[in-house]
Amino acid sequence: MTENLSLVLFGIKDLRLVDNPIPEPGEGEVQLSIRSVGICGSDVGYWQYGQIGSYVVNDPMVMGHEPSGVVTKLGAGVTQLKVGDRVAVEPSRPCRRCQFCKKGRYNVCECLRYLATPPTNGCLCRYFCHPADFVFKLPDNVSFDEGALVQPLALGFFACERGDVSVGNYVLVSGAGPLGMVVLLAAKARGAAKVCVTDINQGRLDFVKSIGADFTVLVGDEGAKETSKRVVEAMGREVDVSVECSGHQSGVANAIYSTRPTGTVVVVGFGGETVEVPLVAATLKQLDIRGMARFCNNYDVVIEAISSGKINVKQLVTHRFSLENAIEAYNTARRREGIKIIVDCSESQDTTM
Amino acid sequence: MTENLSLVLFGIKDLRLVDNPIPEPGEGEVQLSIRSVGICGSDVGYWQYGQIGSYVVNDPMVMGHEPSGVVTKLGAGVTQLKVGDRVAVEPSRPCRRCQFCKKGRYNVCECLRYLATPPTNGCLCRYFCHPADFVFKLPDNVSFDEGALVQPLALGFFACERGDVSVGNYVLVSGAGPLGMVVLLAAKARGAAKVCVTDINQGRLDFVKSIGADFTVLVGDEGAKETSKRVVEAMGREVDVSVECSGHQSGVANAIYSTRPTGTVVVVGFGGETVEVPLVAATLKQLDIRGMARFCNNYDVVIEAISSGKINVKQLVTHRFSLENAIEAYNTARRREGIKIIVDCSESQDTTM
Amino acid sequence: MTENLSLVLFGIKDLRLVDNPIPEPGEGEVQLSIRSVGICGSDVGYWQYGQIGSYVVNDPMVMGHEPSGVVTKLGAGVTQLKVGDRVAVEPSRPCRRCQFCKKGRYNVCECLRYLATPPTNGCLCRYFCHPADFVFKLPDNVSFDEGALVQPLALGFFACERGDVSVGNYVLVSGAGPLGMVVLLAAKARGAAKVCVTDINQGRLDFVKSIGADFTVLVGDEGAKETSKRVVEAMGREVDVSVECSGHQSGVANAIYSTRPTGTVVVVGFGGETVEVPLVAATLKQLDIRGMARFCNNYDVVIEAISSGKINVKQLVTHRFSLENAIEAYNTARRREGIKIIVDCSESQDTTM
Amino acid sequence: MTENLSLVLFGIKDLRLVDNPIPEPGEGEVQLSIRSVGICGSDVGYWQYGQIGSYVVNDPMVMGHEPSGVVTKLGAGVTQLKVGDRVAVEPSRPCRRCQFCKKGRYNVCECLRYLATPPTNGCLCRYFCHPADFVFKLPDNVSFDEGALVQPLALGFFACERGDVSVGNYVLVSGAGPLGMVVLLAAKARGAAKVCVTDINQGRLDFVKSIGADFTVLVGDEGAKETSKRVVEAMGREVDVSVECSGHQSGVANAIYSTRPTGTVVVVGFGGETVEVPLVAATLKQLDIRGMARFCNNYDVVIEAISSGKINVKQLVTHRFSLENAIEAYNTARRREGIKIIVDCSESQDTTM
Repeated sequence: MTENLSLVLFGIKDLRLVDNPIPEPGEGEVQLSIRSVGICGSDVGYWQYGQIGSYVVNDPMVMGHEPSGVVTKLGAGVTQLKVGDRVAVEPSRPCRRCQFCKKGRYNVCECLRYLATPPTNGCLCRYFCHPADFVFKLPDNVSFDEGALVQPLALGFFACERGDVSVGNYVLVSGAGPLGMVVLLAAKARGAAKVCVTDINQGRLDFVKSIGADFTVLVGDEGAKETSKRVVEAMGREVDVSVECSGHQSGVANAIYSTRPTGTVVVVGFGGETVEVPLVAATLKQLDIRGMARFCNNYDVVIEAISSGKINVKQLVTHRFSLENAIEAYNTARRREGIKIIVDCSESQDTTM
Repeated sequence: MTENLSLVLFGIKDLRLVDNPIPEPGEGEVQLSIRSVGICGSDVGYWQYGQIGSYVVNDPMVMGHEPSGVVTKLGAGVTQLKVGDRVAVEPSRPCRRCQFCKKGRYNVCECLRYLATPPTNGCLCRYFCHPADFVFKLPDNVSFDEGALVQPLALGFFACERGDVSVGNYVLVSGAGPLGMVVLLAAKARGAAKVCVTDINQGRLDFVKSIGADFTVLVGDEGAKETSKRVVEAMGREVDVSVECSGHQSGVANAIYSTRPTGTVVVVGFGGETVEVPLVAATLKQLDIRGMARFCNNYDVVIEAISSGKINVKQLVTHRFSLENAIEAYNTARRREGIKIIVDCSESQDTTM
Repeated sequence: MTENLSLVLFGIKDLRLVDNPIPEPGEGEVQLSIRSVGICGSDVGYWQYGQIGSYVVNDPMVMGHEPSGVVTKLGAGVTQLKVGDRVAVEPSRPCRRCQFCKKGRYNVCECLRYLATPPTNGCLCRYFCHPADFVFKLPDNVSFDEGALVQPLALGFFACERGDVSVGNYVLVSGAGPLGMVVLLAAKARGAAKVCVTDINQGRLDFVKSIGADFTVLVGDEGAKETSKRVVEAMGREVDVSVECSGHQSGVANAIYSTRPTGTVVVVGFGGETVEVPLVAATLKQLDIRGMARFCNNYDVVIEAISSGKINVKQLVTHRFSLENAIEAYNTARRREGIKIIVDCSESQDTTM
Repeated sequence: MTENLSLVLFGIKDLRLVDNPIPEPGEGEVQLSIRSVGICGSDVGYWQYGQIGSYVVNDPMVMGHEPSGVVTKLGAGVTQLKVGDRVAVEPSRPCRRCQFCKKGRYNVCECLRYLATPPTNGCLCRYFCHPADFVFKLPDNVSFDEGALVQPLALGFFACERGDVSVGNYVLVSGAGPLGMVVLLAAKARGAAKVCVTDINQGRLDFVKSIGADFTVLVGDEGAKETSKRVVEAMGREVDVSVECSGHQSGVANAIYSTRPTGTVVVVGFGGETVEVPLVAATLKQLDIRGMARFCNNYDVVIEAISSGKINVKQLVTHRFSLENAIEAYNTARRREGIKIIVDCSESQDTTM
């Protein structure tokens, strides 16, 4: 009989559904009945390669870091939530004591535990415990699937916060993948005037156009300076803020060339160890290039943006699987089908999105 | 008979002393009797190569952009200065009407005229006219030579302003040349706790130690990661702010590796078109990389810092030449002798520094 | 025969339509055929009392500082506009040379000339000349009346900029008059989550609810602490930013009591010389109280917000008069009828809004 | 036999030395042998009146919140300190879980426990336990008395941080009491150009002049506008930043009148419920008025400033008493004798400062 069915990564390409004990909430924690969990590119990365950068899967690890759920038990001292609350879960467990935590930037906490990032277990399971202050109530009009999408959206919103995207801004988003999409939605929610998205794939560009991009530019092998000319031509002027989400060297260069003097380029979590960057252009234009990997302190803002209709994320969910079929869900993600794939972890197979 | 003896660059390696007419001040301008003018690396660059980046010397150009002087005539409407005032001259003439001027960043003015940057004439001459609001009174205890040094210091102060260097900060300065020196002095004036300077030349490091560097690290061929380890070891921890002044790729990498999460790396005017940068480290640490080339709005602050004794710049002046011997002065600069070389443009050969 | 019919204030309660010569544009200026000009509370103030604060009407002054128009002539050096361009006019003429202009805050320029603020003439006339860089092209889908509304909106947008209103913020607007309305619209355009507006007049509250306020609170004589309780109850929590637009002492107190720790209170141009303020509450909560009177550098943002449909300002125009009937327009404004009253200065009586 | 001799406030004017048990450090805590503890105005306030604002002494409370000491035991999980470390103690115990803690502003923590602020016990005793991350190592050249002074200095440094005091700034400090003194020292450490201090007591002004004030202005009954004229005359221009430390209404007004447009006024913890403020002047000048009560995240900066000689605080210690004579020390403070009074809590009567 299953108690706490969980999707566990045992090693490279070795995902298994196992039955773990149900955890009890510690002080300041809540126990959650997990509902929707999204699949992210990094999940597929750990599965296929056993590591991302310096994070290596040495021990079996429960997958999943984009969860929503229902509060089922309260640990000692928890007063802000109650059993039955529908919630989204921020997948961070910072130490709360290092200089960065104390200064409000727990996303660079020196000993941050982040769900489904080795050696920290994730939440792709039936029951999970988490600190109550990283669990956020969902309004009635926000579904569990939307609750699962808060995590990727929080990345997009934080990228725009790092870039100070504000009303009237012209924004370039480099890359039309899952990250570029959420940056686009976040930029619009902050009042951006025009957003131009670039990608090497026309299908992706068509999709981002359908969810709000004002302009798209298909990138070929013309070189970053030339791409930049097309961005500036489409937008009518240089952009105020660029957000690089493609992970490609030419995306960084295009962002630097396309941004007006004293503007900002945000670079979100990057692949290669080093990148060739046109730094002299960045100094002459006195640009700010701001690195960003993880978000902090914005789950409430994202939930409000969904609830108020500022952003529509339902359009991003293209596939749903039950927890029992989670490996099939991962295979679908691995084949890059659809936009966002949700694993439904409820026992009663909630079929609503 | 000489009226307005001027040092003019006619082409590559073709500097000549010529006699120009004395200019009259236009509305809002003052006429200045120039006294001390410092020589900068860019002066030597235009002289030896006829261009720097996209700035090409196509027509004869008066050299000099680090001047002090005395007000000799007032143009219409000038009330804040009077004849006889001893002054430092900020070498900018912004348009005052573009979006950047209107937003307070005239250093990226779309049509900025900067002295001795083609096609704009400089001030290495006897008499020169300039907008009164870019001419700043010197207190009695600040000499003309110190007045000439306000310009390079303004670069150092602006670099530290871009980096938000503040009290208690640990600061890395990459490069112990003229730029690194003024950044060091500015960082200390802003209350930096510790400054570590790196360079490939031990003699330069010895000099910056004598003017206030807390630590120095001699850079060899060990690679940026290794250099960074030595910086962090010397300082006792990662730095809050790094200022890259070396123009070398490894300097940028060392700055990124040496800076604590959420810290700032300032990159000052860079040589190569593109640079290999460890961008993934910058994103994981959520660094800000801020480009900087020209300064703005800080001449008054620099003059006060000299006047109050916060910084001692007399120690930087190692050579002085009369205007008649200006070409010899430039040859001395070309041979990289000394630290700062001053050309004295007064007719009466002021021999005090 | 009328050349340049103008509405001129000769003294207290002495408004007359007079015929002035048509001005020619100076260097950097454009000549404009004025179209729509809004009437502002300050216009009525000068008319009825001959002064506002330290600004006294000593000489006849042309009224009007909320204009739109069409470019009819270009002065020397103007290249960014052409004859026939439809434009909104920012009513500022800063000196461009004082420390505040040079630092990008020309709204506190030491010798700012602001239209229809003594002794500077306004633009309620047929033809008017103005610096080209303070004249902004209107997109085709923005009408002249909307162009006239850019000025009051720029106040609202600048208030929200001073308050750093951002996505997800809970915002209190104290006062539902013309100023409170534009602050409400600006806050929403910047992504504010919820806006609560307070006023002593239920009719005004009904109107702001119709244009987007999420909550309204009718203020009686219950005292600021009690009002604050009702604001916090309506909003569900303390607000992030308050903008005081009522000019009443209790509005400032309510704003301070209603704002969360480390939040911001913006106080827009205030009436009385001194105000009783609960400063101890502001210090314990570590609030920022930011004063604001005039705006700068945001006409382009406002025009974009109108053009893109982020804000709907057509709903604010309730009355229109021809220039020939301008005094009747002013009497209507004096009786506080309607929301925004427009004087149409075109000769051909453009009847479209 | 005394175990943990402690100075306890039992009620209004009822201070007693009692013997408490020695506490054991919990997880993440250290046990400290307390050495020097400074006396603050608030200590005297609780003693004399039994309350300050809404903080009421209902139960016996150990006094003292300006401590230094030596680590005597480590609680579980403490690795960054070791037994024998000489330390300064930041008297805060924030919850680490509320929105303000998570955003880096634990000084407005919703359930902050602050030493010697009812109902939280202080540290005027032999042995005390505290979270290790609020305990900071002292360099060898910083004495225990200087370590005790870190707390008041942290207030001064945070006030200057709130005011963004930076190099070259002209700063007004309103009030020459203990708070004004530390603000003066902090402003200078941040590179302020000139500091003017105002007070109603010439003796205090003479003292602040001796520790670094550039100008002093004796305040009489001339009114804030007149005082402001004298401040501006002494400084040569309006100030960039004012810090109000006097707790007097006229001090706030003087600060507002004396500060240049777009400048900043910091108001530190204020007495009266409401204050009459010239808000219209603040709005016309677009000032920022920033409230401040408690500090955060700056103990390391203050310790470095002492250690490096940026500030000299030894000059502030005028009296020392043993713990056995603590009540006499409090009486001395009550009579406002001297500047800073230290109670030495060591058993062996360390007689060095």
